[in-house]
Amino acid sequence: MRGAVFYGTRDVRFEDHEAPGIIKPTDAILRLSATCICGSDLWFYRGVSPMPWGTAVGHEYCGIVEEVGSAVTSIKAGQFVVGSFFASDNTCPSCRAGYQSSCRQAELVLGAQAPRVRVPLADGTLVPTPGAPSGEQLPDLLALSDVMGTGWFGAVAANVEPGGTVVVVGDGAVGLLAVLSAKEMGAEKIVAMSGHEARSKLAREFGATEIVTERGERGVARINELTGGIGADSAIECVGTKESMAQAIEVTRVGGYLGFVGVPHGVPLDLQALFHTHIHIHGGPAPVRRFLPDLIDRVWSGKIHPGRVFDLKLPLERVAEGYRAMDERRAIKVFLQP
Amino acid sequence: MRGAVFYGTRDVRFEDHEAPGIIKPTDAILRLSATCICGSDLWFYRGVSPMPWGTAVGHEYCGIVEEVGSAVTSIKAGQFVVGSFFASDNTCPSCRAGYQSSCRQAELVLGAQAPRVRVPLADGTLVPTPGAPSGEQLPDLLALSDVMGTGWFGAVAANVEPGGTVVVVGDGAVGLLAVLSAKEMGAEKIVAMSGHEARSKLAREFGATEIVTERGERGVARINELTGGIGADSAIECVGTKESMAQAIEVTRVGGYLGFVGVPHGVPLDLQALFHTHIHIHGGPAPVRRFLPDLIDRVWSGKIHPGRVFDLKLPLERVAEGYRAMDERRAIKVFLQP
Repeated sequence: MRGAVFYGTRDVRFEDHEAPGIIKPTDAILRLSATCICGSDLWFYRGVSPMPWGTAVGHEYCGIVEEVGSAVTSIKAGQFVVGSFFASDNTCPSCRAGYQSSCRQAELVLGAQAPRVRVPLADGTLVPTPGAPSGEQLPDLLALSDVMGTGWFGAVAANVEPGGTVVVVGDGAVGLLAVLSAKEMGAEKIVAMSGHEARSKLAREFGATEIVTERGERGVARINELTGGIGADSAIECVGTKESMAQAIEVTRVGGYLGFVGVPHGVPLDLQALFHTHIHIHGGPAPVRRFLPDLIDRVWSGKIHPGRVFDLKLPLERVAEGYRAMDERRAIKVFLQP
Repeated sequence: MRGAVFYGTRDVRFEDHEAPGIIKPTDAILRLSATCICGSDLWFYRGVSPMPWGTAVGHEYCGIVEEVGSAVTSIKAGQFVVGSFFASDNTCPSCRAGYQSSCRQAELVLGAQAPRVRVPLADGTLVPTPGAPSGEQLPDLLALSDVMGTGWFGAVAANVEPGGTVVVVGDGAVGLLAVLSAKEMGAEKIVAMSGHEARSKLAREFGATEIVTERGERGVARINELTGGIGADSAIECVGTKESMAQAIEVTRVGGYLGFVGVPHGVPLDLQALFHTHIHIHGGPAPVRRFLPDLIDRVWSGKIHPGRVFDLKLPLERVAEGYRAMDERRAIKVFLQP
């Protein structure tokens, strides 16, 4: 089977590697209808995060169940399913608390930029759709596997409420979908911080009421103007750098909420500074599984179209080209058709 | 007028200094019925936090209004009042959001270890009691000015809920009153981390169901045992050191809540480590004013006795002795009678 394999900084190849098979009786094998490249894939692609050479990469997926292990009871071959990038049993105390990405048996799904993938803990991880989706629904459903669920969790973690003011830091796919999530949750004022024309256009279409192109102190000053000097009720941090976290903290009002879903890379937080802001902080790897049933409903009914973040569609064999386009910010997010 | 004046590390003297007078038309002058020494006073006493020499110290107070400025409308001479250590206007956006300690006009009350004190923003800061309190009620009412309100905020910030499991890190007066607060809020299992006999006895009387004497990894292991390997729903951090914060993070369950009210001193937080715990974090200088009406009711009706944390009562002129007793952990908290 051929799929995306990581060979070192800025080197992803479409190569032969071992086809997935059932390893544990709780596994399922999916034939993927669609897969994609994640903003977080750029961390290893750019050499910032470690990833062993020769790893089959990709963790966003949806498709048809081809085979299940002997212990799988609720998922059947032939079903169309969406699953989270974290496999979870959905029964342990962490899962029951709604944090399936901290499941005691959590396992990262890998090798999904391929025609087939093995998903561990199939019963806990996979959620079937009401039926076979149309080709047009595929991008929307695929987005639920990570990026939409992550934006949604960012908005939940930032306590977005009807009528509230929300600032989204980061105009990648997660940030854009955090805008969409805030809109769905009834926020009144949604500020997208973006200096990128195509991205800010999509942000507006997703529900952003204001675009702030400035960053740093000038960005804070603009948010202050837009909020009558008060700051945002909610800030959603979707990048994971020191600068973006500082930006998010500084735009949040006294006693407001900061949801952070950008994977932090070298972000020390000064607790003393935080102490005096009275900000609530919550975040982490999104427990996408918690939101899947609701988000599948919203997609199925045509209420939301998170798949619009895919602005480049390629056949799977051109995955390397997809990585380059995202690395160079020429594409927001790349959809891959196996 | 004679009161407590700071003269350098471990040097507080009872000395003549200028008697307070109305400076702004929004001020009030109180004749104090009782005052005390705060755990946070030990930070400057021990030379850890800066404090200019010659400063009249003390910030916890209750007493009778003697004089009000021309702009004060709701507070009258002769009323018995309790106020927060932070003066606040109680009308700005931060106050309306419930964060009076981040009031836009916030001013620290100082010089309260004295017979009289000036309280700025009297209308926003002071809350009258239903009548003149008895001598027995004085310690309970005085405790509301900071330490009880701080323990209460810690429990609020840690999202303590009926039936929940709470761990309190720190067995100072704030920690003990966080135990009392968690009990009032209906927590089912309340673990006080304390290796000090008198303190853990009081913790039990306030509602602690378990005492854990171990710290560090062994402390975490004990909490794990007590919570069926899950961790606490809520942790309340009442110290402010790197070690105590780490302890609080480690005992909190996945997706749980950490309220921190110990003033952080050199506590860097690794956001990446935090990311993977899914813990909610909230804290800061307690907005005591938010809780005062409710807490005065609870004291007035005899429901709570937070004044029990005062285990040493001295006449005000022996304030230096009080500081020594608290510094050496011979006293939990020192009550001073002007």
